Amino acid sequence: MRKHIFNAGPCVLPQEALENTAKAVLDFNGIGQSVMEVSHRSKEFQAVVDEAEALMKELLAIPEGYSVLFLGGGASTQFLMVPYNLLKKKAAYLNTGAWSKKAIKEAKAFGEVEVVASSDDKNFNYIPKGWKIPADADYFHFTSNNTIYGTEIREDYDSPVLLISDMSSDIMSRPVDVSKYAMIYGGAQKNLGPAGVTFVIIRNDILGKMERHIPTMMNYQTHIDGGSMFNTPPCINIFALKEVLKWVKAQGGVKEMERRAIEKAEMLYTAIEESKMFVPTVAEPGDRSLMNITFVMTEAYKEKESDFIEFAKGRGIVGIKGHRSVGGFRASCYNALEKSSVAALVQAMKDYEEANL
Amino acid sequence: MRKHIFNAGPCVLPQEALENTAKAVLDFNGIGQSVMEVSHRSKEFQAVVDEAEALMKELLAIPEGYSVLFLGGGASTQFLMVPYNLLKKKAAYLNTGAWSKKAIKEAKAFGEVEVVASSDDKNFNYIPKGWKIPADADYFHFTSNNTIYGTEIREDYDSPVLLISDMSSDIMSRPVDVSKYAMIYGGAQKNLGPAGVTFVIIRNDILGKMERHIPTMMNYQTHIDGGSMFNTPPCINIFALKEVLKWVKAQGGVKEMERRAIEKAEMLYTAIEESKMFVPTVAEPGDRSLMNITFVMTEAYKEKESDFIEFAKGRGIVGIKGHRSVGGFRASCYNALEKSSVAALVQAMKDYEEANL
Repeated sequence: MRKHIFNAGPCVLPQEALENTAKAVLDFNGIGQSVMEVSHRSKEFQAVVDEAEALMKELLAIPEGYSVLFLGGGASTQFLMVPYNLLKKKAAYLNTGAWSKKAIKEAKAFGEVEVVASSDDKNFNYIPKGWKIPADADYFHFTSNNTIYGTEIREDYDSPVLLISDMSSDIMSRPVDVSKYAMIYGGAQKNLGPAGVTFVIIRNDILGKMERHIPTMMNYQTHIDGGSMFNTPPCINIFALKEVLKWVKAQGGVKEMERRAIEKAEMLYTAIEESKMFVPTVAEPGDRSLMNITFVMTEAYKEKESDFIEFAKGRGIVGIKGHRSVGGFRASCYNALEKSSVAALVQAMKDYEEANL
Repeated sequence: MRKHIFNAGPCVLPQEALENTAKAVLDFNGIGQSVMEVSHRSKEFQAVVDEAEALMKELLAIPEGYSVLFLGGGASTQFLMVPYNLLKKKAAYLNTGAWSKKAIKEAKAFGEVEVVASSDDKNFNYIPKGWKIPADADYFHFTSNNTIYGTEIREDYDSPVLLISDMSSDIMSRPVDVSKYAMIYGGAQKNLGPAGVTFVIIRNDILGKMERHIPTMMNYQTHIDGGSMFNTPPCINIFALKEVLKWVKAQGGVKEMERRAIEKAEMLYTAIEESKMFVPTVAEPGDRSLMNITFVMTEAYKEKESDFIEFAKGRGIVGIKGHRSVGGFRASCYNALEKSSVAALVQAMKDYEEANL
């Protein structure tokens, strides 16, 4: 029986994408080879990469002059590639949590880093306000959604310098004005597909301006020139990503994903607000993530948290344990999570409260 | 109908591994989640990584004191990570082809590189002899199998310095004396599984001796400490790799893989030698690869090469076109290639010769 999968990533994927991927593992397009066996240089696999790229461009309305790349190494490798390719003297970062911190740490080895604001004083349970992007920075970097802490920035900032965002955990959940960004990147393992492939959307004209030596695999230009196939790419991962994008398109695209995300998040946040047992960890509604909904039990019921996780598990609800640095619960409501799964969780919360209050 | 798959990589995989992976894409271990959805931090997925690691250690008889890692980024990223972590002053490389050259290129940015020998004078159609590993190098690096040129080194060298080998295309095809190596690495997409995961076997005590700053993701210690899960790993790729290793073990391990490799290669090299139409590109039998068997048509028949590729295709034989830098044909006979596929190719060669000589 298929579970209600609230995992933070890897996470729930569309059933159709799973079925089509399983089929391609056995026989890809009826060519008598698995998608794990076919040459990445074959016309059949080239068509997969081309379709994935075209769907990214179409769904996110990516303007001319940008490249879309599918790479290995995870977003953690991007923390390093961004400064390798773009940090000349000084970079500016917004610190909204663990992933921002990791990105900042890597950048510091390449130049000066100005942290424009940080919410670490309150365990990252809000988005800092009232800061400014310094006009003398080479670029400004922020994490749009903070998977661990349940906060999200759903604004495409106006920036006087190159704007770069790690959108690992909310890409494809809303329309984005890509033209405001120099670069958007992220691991695929939330709204785009399985773990093992990283997407990069990059404006071509920002490259080639660096004096330092950039190792071949760290250089974005390598991967642009190679059409994501300078070396053997993670083929099955790109295939599955393409299947997920086909599903997004068939469902109505990012506008529809956004409508659903708002609907699901409202269901769950309302249930939390109305409960006497659960409280959200992010106080300010405008800062709350639509993707990762974090909440805890009130002090009086705190010791029941693990019991509720077991109770929910009994109803087929998995993946709601909060990250250790926040505790409590985290219900990740990515694109492929059905409304019925959120309804199941809300019902479990109500039933548990009724029995235990 | 399943083809006879002679692809150079990605390449033929065991049918059982494909079937088990397809099942896990739909439902992993019957837990109601896909292997692409389950959390990499779950006990279920941890068991996959543990089993993959244990099988690598068992099958290759890896001694105590070594770590086995599964990373993203491909062997091309290793070309960079090796010098980042280990090149203090000077490294020595053997140049046996395109992949050696790429490894050498990356190392040069980190220190002095001594190329102990090169076969580029004859388009890499032999393995250089009579060279010495310099005792003052930090390490010596070689590519054990040259996928493009069809040469292979099946010797575990005695080395006065750290011995490092890129075994992307012949790992798990013969017993290796791992104790002679400081490090063995490679892309999985030949004998180990699908593209998208890279294995690293590394002796723990060689690390931590470098003064330069090593970025987090480039540092082997990061991945050893994180048990290959410092960041989200390529989960489905590791799962499929584990399935391939289970198959290798069930078939009798690396000794049996070696026996089969010799048997298949002998069938094909003999057919080439006996033919009047085909000639091997590697003259010296001791230098010939058991994995990638490269041959061309003699001058008199050269213009028939693409016709033969089509003829073979008609019999379900795919992937035999040679790399553009060698031309002609390349029949890659990796572990999972059945003897019957080699027999089909040999028969096609005989029949074509009979009809066209």
